[in-house]
This record gives sequence, structure tokens and C-alpha cells, in this order.
Amino acid sequence: MEKQLVLLSLVALSFCNFAFADEQALQDFCVADPNGPVRVNGLACKNPMLVQANDFLFRGLNMPGNTSNPIGSKVTLVNVAMLPGLNTLGIAMARIDYAPWGLNPPHLHPRATEIFTLIEGSVLVGFVTSNPENRLISKILQKGDVFVFPKGLIHFQQNLGHGHAMAISGLSNQNPGIVTVANAVFKSNPDISSEVLTKAFQVDKHIIDQLQSKF
Amino acid sequence: MEKQLVLLSLVALSFCNFAFADEQALQDFCVADPNGPVRVNGLACKNPMLVQANDFLFRGLNMPGNTSNPIGSKVTLVNVAMLPGLNTLGIAMARIDYAPWGLNPPHLHPRATEIFTLIEGSVLVGFVTSNPENRLISKILQKGDVFVFPKGLIHFQQNLGHGHAMAISGLSNQNPGIVTVANAVFKSNPDISSEVLTKAFQVDKHIIDQLQSKF
Amino acid sequence: MEKQLVLLSLVALSFCNFAFADEQALQDFCVADPNGPVRVNGLACKNPMLVQANDFLFRGLNMPGNTSNPIGSKVTLVNVAMLPGLNTLGIAMARIDYAPWGLNPPHLHPRATEIFTLIEGSVLVGFVTSNPENRLISKILQKGDVFVFPKGLIHFQQNLGHGHAMAISGLSNQNPGIVTVANAVFKSNPDISSEVLTKAFQVDKHIIDQLQSKF
Amino acid sequence: MEKQLVLLSLVALSFCNFAFADEQALQDFCVADPNGPVRVNGLACKNPMLVQANDFLFRGLNMPGNTSNPIGSKVTLVNVAMLPGLNTLGIAMARIDYAPWGLNPPHLHPRATEIFTLIEGSVLVGFVTSNPENRLISKILQKGDVFVFPKGLIHFQQNLGHGHAMAISGLSNQNPGIVTVANAVFKSNPDISSEVLTKAFQVDKHIIDQLQSKF
Amino acid sequence: MEKQLVLLSLVALSFCNFAFADEQALQDFCVADPNGPVRVNGLACKNPMLVQANDFLFRGLNMPGNTSNPIGSKVTLVNVAMLPGLNTLGIAMARIDYAPWGLNPPHLHPRATEIFTLIEGSVLVGFVTSNPENRLISKILQKGDVFVFPKGLIHFQQNLGHGHAMAISGLSNQNPGIVTVANAVFKSNPDISSEVLTKAFQVDKHIIDQLQSKF
Amino acid sequence: MEKQLVLLSLVALSFCNFAFADEQALQDFCVADPNGPVRVNGLACKNPMLVQANDFLFRGLNMPGNTSNPIGSKVTLVNVAMLPGLNTLGIAMARIDYAPWGLNPPHLHPRATEIFTLIEGSVLVGFVTSNPENRLISKILQKGDVFVFPKGLIHFQQNLGHGHAMAISGLSNQNPGIVTVANAVFKSNPDISSEVLTKAFQVDKHIIDQLQSKF
Repeated sequence: MEKQLVLLSLVALSFCNFAFADEQALQDFCVADPNGPVRVNGLACKNPMLVQANDFLFRGLNMPGNTSNPIGSKVTLVNVAMLPGLNTLGIAMARIDYAPWGLNPPHLHPRATEIFTLIEGSVLVGFVTSNPENRLISKILQKGDVFVFPKGLIHFQQNLGHGHAMAISGLSNQNPGIVTVANAVFKSNPDISSEVLTKAFQVDKHIIDQLQSKF
Repeated sequence: MEKQLVLLSLVALSFCNFAFADEQALQDFCVADPNGPVRVNGLACKNPMLVQANDFLFRGLNMPGNTSNPIGSKVTLVNVAMLPGLNTLGIAMARIDYAPWGLNPPHLHPRATEIFTLIEGSVLVGFVTSNPENRLISKILQKGDVFVFPKGLIHFQQNLGHGHAMAISGLSNQNPGIVTVANAVFKSNPDISSEVLTKAFQVDKHIIDQLQSKF
Repeated sequence: MEKQLVLLSLVALSFCNFAFADEQALQDFCVADPNGPVRVNGLACKNPMLVQANDFLFRGLNMPGNTSNPIGSKVTLVNVAMLPGLNTLGIAMARIDYAPWGLNPPHLHPRATEIFTLIEGSVLVGFVTSNPENRLISKILQKGDVFVFPKGLIHFQQNLGHGHAMAISGLSNQNPGIVTVANAVFKSNPDISSEVLTKAFQVDKHIIDQLQSKF
Repeated sequence: MEKQLVLLSLVALSFCNFAFADEQALQDFCVADPNGPVRVNGLACKNPMLVQANDFLFRGLNMPGNTSNPIGSKVTLVNVAMLPGLNTLGIAMARIDYAPWGLNPPHLHPRATEIFTLIEGSVLVGFVTSNPENRLISKILQKGDVFVFPKGLIHFQQNLGHGHAMAISGLSNQNPGIVTVANAVFKSNPDISSEVLTKAFQVDKHIIDQLQSKF
Repeated sequence: MEKQLVLLSLVALSFCNFAFADEQALQDFCVADPNGPVRVNGLACKNPMLVQANDFLFRGLNMPGNTSNPIGSKVTLVNVAMLPGLNTLGIAMARIDYAPWGLNPPHLHPRATEIFTLIEGSVLVGFVTSNPENRLISKILQKGDVFVFPKGLIHFQQNLGHGHAMAISGLSNQNPGIVTVANAVFKSNPDISSEVLTKAFQVDKHIIDQLQSKF
Repeated sequence: MEKQLVLLSLVALSFCNFAFADEQALQDFCVADPNGPVRVNGLACKNPMLVQANDFLFRGLNMPGNTSNPIGSKVTLVNVAMLPGLNTLGIAMARIDYAPWGLNPPHLHPRATEIFTLIEGSVLVGFVTSNPENRLISKILQKGDVFVFPKGLIHFQQNLGHGHAMAISGLSNQNPGIVTVANAVFKSNPDISSEVLTKAFQVDKHIIDQLQSKF
């Protein structure tokens, strides 16, 4: 009997993987249930009668991220996985901390534009356009500056100061996604073949080997 | 055994709260199952093989709403909860009845624009813009007039005549939502604190008390 | 006990029919589970950990469709039902084969624009606009020509050559839908009444009878 | 000088044909200027400072449409061309009048779902699905009934009564478009070739000739 | 001649008021020209060849807003009017400053959800739902807390501390719009009639008079 | 006088840079005017009365692209700039040619999902996910295979055969955009600083120098 129940509940679960979009919410809110086993386009939502203020709350964005890593930066992302009330509402937030000279390396968000404001420090920011082709648009930001990184374009920030730097961003999707170029191209699992990469980057294999071996 | 089945079905249910949007339906129709226990962004949909003409039908919009209430008006909304065939299709309809001098009080639809046509009577209508700030755009409508209330803006209608008035509206969402200002601000549950309201409306507490105590 | 389990699993299933849209995917992908019993706006998605390259693959579009039918054409559609990885991604593809003088008869896609390229042969293509009213926009295409059929408009293609013709199309929805005018109007199940059709087409009943009896 | 000014103004105009969508209005309203020579995706909008209540008003929907025509029905559409305030707001309205036995013939709206309520009379309504293929979903409506016609599907209404019938519809687009099947297929300008039509409808040319010659 | 040129340029302008939406940008960016006389759904965009890094930059969000006003708060909004690079990208940012006990009064954004993080101080926040009807969802936030205010719902924040408080918000639209309830209802221009307001709020005229006379 | 006219026409132009989106076309079509000086979100559209069948036509996709270049591949893109009728319709098409062992290097489309079918040859295809992080999903495709590359993710194709290979793709945007990783990161104009790149890729400067110097 036990086995049958387990089996049946697994069967029931197998019927419960759903996808949905967050364009135009169809009620005031649809709070996600991040602990549920259901994997959907976004997340499933709770019974609205059980929704509480805490479902719309995330705590601790005042805590500095740990920047003790090779690139000297840390992104603390508050997306729908961290804040279930964001589900279907099309927005997220992030805090970025930078050690001195720390770098948030070239990356892109496949599903979001980012609006970025520097709370502390001085950073170099830039993004590269697709058309006009491969134009770098960059700026040195001071405390209080706000900058925009358009959806899907490669961008980065580097701390120029001797001190710590910190920024807050808004992103136009409940789950913006992050594709870090160096990791996606040279650290994927499995690796992209060196034939592809040597031709793509027009360098010798030993250089690709170094790019793939690092970290 | 009974308990286990009940428990299991509750478990199964807990896996079945989903959200979805109605931007761009992905098949001809997705008829809602309003009786299902599942709460989603909109509603779950039926097996299309079980769909019948009645799923696209709502009856009785010819019946006058009961306007024997303090404001002298009644909105009969035909949204996806009343008409399951509307699910994912992005539209709804309403009938509004007005007793003599009856008022559909200042309210807004967080998810829809409203197109309104007066079938009978004479009413004053208005909406307030956010930019230019707080401009009232109003008009006296006669039978056969059509008027638009843009999405998310506060609007109202008042019957000017000695007789009954009636209107039909189309709304650009399967579940437009209604926020009646007086109720949301002064009748919420729990109350918004009188400190907030006295400062917001710049009046003495006894006035806020009266606004909160009425009805 | 068996019955109870069957009953319970059916009950569980009945809680699991969901709808969702593909506007703005909320993760990299949401691979559909076309074999699942769940019917949704699009399809449910798999556990991303179980996703494989094959979920993004459809094989055999190089195989000519069978054009031995009264109209002498065959559409091979690769939509989300054939290629689960398309789920939530807003695009589909089709191959159209034409016997000599074969016709892809007047039809429309309720949910998609079509971009069409002729790989082989020579075909007459056309679509009819709604405004300006009922204007036919048509062209004779040769190998290598690309043409556009706007969303929701009636269009057709006819092979003009003595040989076989073949085209590839992209469509702007994971499930574009096809409404073939002759079938929808004269071959529906049940029939549209001849009173409606004789008045709509302004012809005698015996002509409607012929139109309804054929095939 | 006159010529130069005329030439220049024409040049200026040639720079002013723009397209835009009404998904997510970016201000409270964007009132169309239907008299302007500019043709856009929707219509250009006025200076908001010059906007008046009349821009949100259309008069006369209480007037019966003239049904003295072969099909015995008349649609009075209130779209953005008639009501400039609808621009960018994604909704429109229509009044349909029916003579006894009058027919609103099989047609579709390429850009809108329709929610329909019968104000007076008794009508047979129906629409044909694309999947399941060519299923007719129909119903006899009485006064006060509300029915839905999903976006892009062929539908019709016929007055069953001895008296006049009248309905009001909401449509989910500022410019829904109407494709009347009989006219688009058999009355286009220029004609669709009889080779195409005889094969599409599987009937003899003389029948196509009659279908094309009528009206 | 002068007059003719002026006249002609006005004529040219009259052809140049356009509307557009920011759903799905159609190139990397479309930088707004906020100084142009053209009023559109959003703003017109610059020649991409003339775009500079400064077009994506706004300076001074580190400067506290002036809270010397009756409500003791100040919102500094960075929308497309302040940051032209936001045009078509669907996001904006705001800084909110609060004097001790300062209030950001009940208001709503007709076109955006807000994600809010408290940088400094302690504030009471709340929003009121439309369904379940008029439920207040509120929370006391500390430094580092993040909270969500769903699109179109009435919300507020009040500084609970003896010191200054400050927050940063992201909003899901390039021009979210702000409707402050007290001003829209009691301070509109022209006034909403006291007949409407006394009935809507169910209070005597002298109370409405006070609500309308303040500020 | 000449100068004044030139000046005036420039002024007129400055009023005519507009942006718009292609979500939900508001008429049957909005044919772009690619030759106009106006730069918009997409392109301006022609007077519909002047629209011709040729506006919906692009010729020559049967011509092989020139693959005599270091990577041995050539993409022939048919977007709205090549096919004005695509304007506002949300789709584009491409032909990709590959020399033996030719590579379409790692790149992404910031605004589109790609559905790809191999017409001739045998190619290795792959894309890298953002979550699960940096997973490579790859497959060897044969003639007739169809594969999907989700929006915003890095992907590539390499010809595995001794002969020429060719593919046709549909893309879910009228202007998908292409960001080729190697060029955007190592060949931007101006260069991304070597400090940023050495830290991002965790390699010595001489390796970055080689990556930046090539081509």
C-alpha cells in the first residue's frame, strides 16, 4: 500500500509541471510557491487566502556580498526565487558589491533590461551594441549616477577606486537570467570543442586551453 | 485508508496551484474550470474535447442590477469567473445600473481600459489623469454615447436623471479588477492607520474617523 | 482499492489542466511534455534537469509530404506538438510540398504571421487584406524568393510548374493554428445551416449543397 | 515660392509615416488624430494639452444601423477611427442590427476576440474551431445572453425572430479588422483565379462563377 | 515669408505626434529626445549614430529630496523623461526620502509594479488588494528589506523613525505614472462635484469641503 | 532662401524620429520605408494605398552566401531592413552557408528565438544555458533536422562534413540582432580595457592581446 501511494503521488506530480508567462497578470498577485516540486515558466502560485505580507518581503539586501573571489565582485539577486511575491509581476532587483578593482565581468541578461544606480564608490561601466556593430558605450560612474544596460546586450562594471563600491539595480523580468560570457564560452559543461573555439576566436589551441583551464 | 487518501489528494492539490497570462492565447480557446480548487493567474482550462457551447455563454445580462444601496448603483460584471470561455482571451463585459441620482463611485481597474456605452438615461462621467496631474476630464452622456476610461485611472459615473439609467461596458482584460477608492482607503481590512490618513488627506483625525466609520 | 486509486488519480488529473501564454519566457526554456494528459495553453513543461538535446530536435523535414490528395499539396508543420522545445518560445516552422498545379488552398493562421521561402519550383501566392477591403495582393514566386503573409489574413499558394514545388516557412507562434476556409465554412461538424450559407454567399441552396457535399 | 513650400511640406510629410503598437500604453492616453494625413500602426496622437473630453466620446450608437441590404444586417463599429481616445488602449465596441432573419455572415477579426451581448431579439450564433478541426460551436441566444468569439476564428450570427434584433460587442483591439469570408474569397479585387477556387472548393467552374458574380 | 515658414513648420509639427509602445524593443536601444516638441506614446528617438554614453546616464540620485512639505516625503523619479536611454526598455527607478514620520501617501502606478528596498531607516509599508476586496497587506520594513507593490494597487509608506529614511525602487515601465489618491479625488482640476464625493464617501458636504479645501 | 528651406527641412526631420513596437499590429500590415531618413523602433511605414506585392517580397535567398572568410560561414539575414513588409509582424528569416568545416561562431540574438532546419550537409549545433548554469546542449544534425535556439542564449553551428552545408532559420523578431561573442568582447570599438578582460577571463595580458589583435 505504501508503495502504491508513493507511486501514485509521483504520478500525480508528473502531471503537474506547468509553464506560464508574466505578461499581464490576471489578478492582483500570484505569489510563487518556491518550495513546491513544480517547475514552471516562473513558479506556481499559492492560494491567495493563504498569502501573507511576508510573501512580498525579502530581507538582508543591506548585507555586503562576499567579494573574496578571483573577480572581486558579488551579485546578490532578488528574483522570484528569493521573493515569491514577484511572480507574474515582471520585475526583480539586485545588489552588486565590488572589492577594490573588483569586476562584474562581461555578461548579459537574456530576459531583462537593467537600470543601475551606484550607491557607493566609483565604477567604470560599459555595454557593447549589436548594431552599430560592436560599439562599446562606456562611462565612469560616481555615487548617485544611474545607468541603463539594454536587454540582451553584453555589459560589465569595474570598481576604479581603492575602496569598496556598491550598486543597486532594477531588472525588467522576475527571472532576468545571467549569461557570463567567459563561463558560458570557456567553462561550459561539457566544454565547447576547441575546434569551435580556436576558429571562433582565431587563436591557437594552447590559448583556448588556457582560457578553458583557468579558475 | 480514508485518511491516507484524503491526505494524498490534499498533497496532490498542493502541487496544483499555477499561474499563467492571457497574452497571446496558444490555441483557439482555453475554457476555464471555475469550479476547480486550483487558483491560478486566471483559471485552469478544461479538456477541449469536453468543451461545449455553454462554456462560452453567460445568461441574464438583461436583468437590472439591484440598486437599493447607499450609492444607488450596481455593476454586474461578466468576467472569466462568470464566463469560463473568456479565459486567456483578454476581454470582459459589464452592465451598470443606476437608480435616480445613483453613483458608480470613483474607482479604477488595475488591469483594463473600459469602453462604456449608455443604453438608457443620462449620466455624468469623468476620469482623472495622472499627467497632466489630476486633470478631471468629464462629460454628460446621453443614450447612445460611447466613452473611454483609460487603464488604471480613477473614474466615476453619476445618473443625472429622474429615471433609471443603464450602460454596457467592454473591458480589456478577462479579470479587470475593481479598486473603489473610498473602500480601499477608508474601509480596508485591517484599517489603514489614522496617522497615515490624517497626513495623506491633511485633515483632522475626527474627519478620518467619520470617513472610516461610515457604511 | 484499485478503483479508489484510479478514481483518485483521475481526480488529481482533473485538478491539473492549466493555461499559460508564451509571451516573455521566464527561464531559458520550458520544454513541453506532449505525452502528458494535461491540456494547457501550449503545453506543460518538463523538469529542466531531465531536459536533453533531443527535446529541441525534430527529424525528417527533408522528407517530401504526400501530395496525392484532391488539392495536390501537403503541409508538414513543426509546431510545439512536434518539437517540445518550442514551448513558450513563440515560433514554429513548416514545409509545404506541391504536386504539379498543386494548391495550398485559401486559409489563415489565427495566431501567426508567416514568412515563406520557395526552395524549389514556381508558385503563385496571394493574400487578401481586410482594409483596404478585400484587396488581393499576389505575386509569382521563383526559387529563392521570400514572401510574407500577415497574421490572420486569408492566403494561398499554387504551384504553377510542371514539376514538384517545395517551400519552408517560419511562423510567429508555437501553435499558429490553421483555418482552411473551404473546410471551416462548408465542411464543419456539424454543418453550418444552409440558410446561413445561402444568404452569406448569395447563391441558391443547390450550390451550397454541392459545396457542402464535396470531398 | 508657393511650389517650393508645397514640395517641402510633401517632403516633410514623407518623413512622417510611423507605426506603433498599443501593447502597454506609455502614458495615460494618446488621443489619435484621425484627420491627419499620417498613416501609422494605429494613429498618431495629439498634444495632450489640447485633448478634450470630446476626444473620448462617440455619439449615436443608439441609432439602428440600416439593414436594407441583401444579408439583412448592419455592423456599426466604434474603433479608433471613430473614437480617437481609443488609440493605444486595446479595445473597441460595436453595435449589430439585424432585420428579421438577417445575417451577420461568416467573418473573422484578425486582431481581436469579441464578447457579444444580445440586447433585443433571438439569434443563432456560431464559430468554427481550427483544432479540433472545423468543429462548429453554436448556440441560440436570447435577450441578455453573452457569448464569446475567440480571436481569429470564423463566426456568424443570424436573427431567428420575426422582429428586429440588436447586439452590443466589445472587441480586444482598437482596430479589430473584419474579414468577411464570402467577400474575401469570392469578391476580392482583383479576383482570386477560378483555377485556385475550383480546386480549393472542389466544385465546377460554373459554381465558382456564380459565387464570384453575385452581389 | 517669415510667417509662411512659421506656419509651415507648425503644419509639419502637426503631422508629427506619434504613439508607440515599449513592448519588445526592435533594436538595441531607441534613445528618447526629451527636448523635441513631439509628444508620443513614450518619446521619439534619436539617430543612433548620434547616441552617446550620456544618453544612458542620469546624475544625482545620491542627493536627498526636499521633504519640507506637509507630507514630509519626496519622490525623485528617474523615468524616460529624465533618462532618455530608457525609451522602449520598460523600466524606471526612483529614490524616496522621508523626514521623521514622513509619509509617501496612498497612491498607485497605473502602468507599473514597484520593487522597493529600504536603504536607511524604518518604514511602515502597505498595499490594498482588489480581490480579496480591500485587504490591507502591510509590513514594517528595516534597512535592507525589499518589498513589492503590485501594478495598479493603492500603496503607501510611512517613516516610523525619529531620523531620515531613504529607499530605492525599480518600476516596470519607462513611465510608470503616479495617481495620488487624495489629490486625484479631492484636488482635481476642475473639482469632482461635491454631490459625487458626498455620495461616494458617505459623509456630509462640510467634510468633503474640508477635504477639498486643504493644502 | 535656400538655406532657410534646408534649415526648415532639417528642423522638420528632427521632429520625425519615432519609436514603436511590433507587439500586436494595429492593421493588416505596416510596410516599412527603409529608405526614409527616419530612424525608429523598427521602421516607419508607407501609405497603405501605395503598398504593392513587391513590398512583401525579397529575392535571392537561393544564392549561396560567400564563405571565403576566416570562419568559413556566411549568414544571409532577411529582416525588416531587407523585407519592408515584415515591419510590425514579429518574424524574420535567414539562410546560413558553411564551407567545409565552416563555423557560425558563438553568438546570440538579443531579441529572438531561432528555429533552424538543415537543408544540406551535417553540422554540430549547440547552445549554452544560463540556468542550469553554463550547460552545453548540443547535437549533430543531419539534412532535414530542425533545432531550436532559445532567445538570448549563446549558440553556434559547425559544418562537420567535407562538403558545403546550408540551413534556413526562422527568427521571432523583425530585427533579431546578432551579438557575436568574440567580436563583441575582443573586437569592440573602442576596445574593452585589457584590465577588464584579463580579470574576466583570468588569463595573462599577452593572451588578451592576441585575442584582441587577431582578424
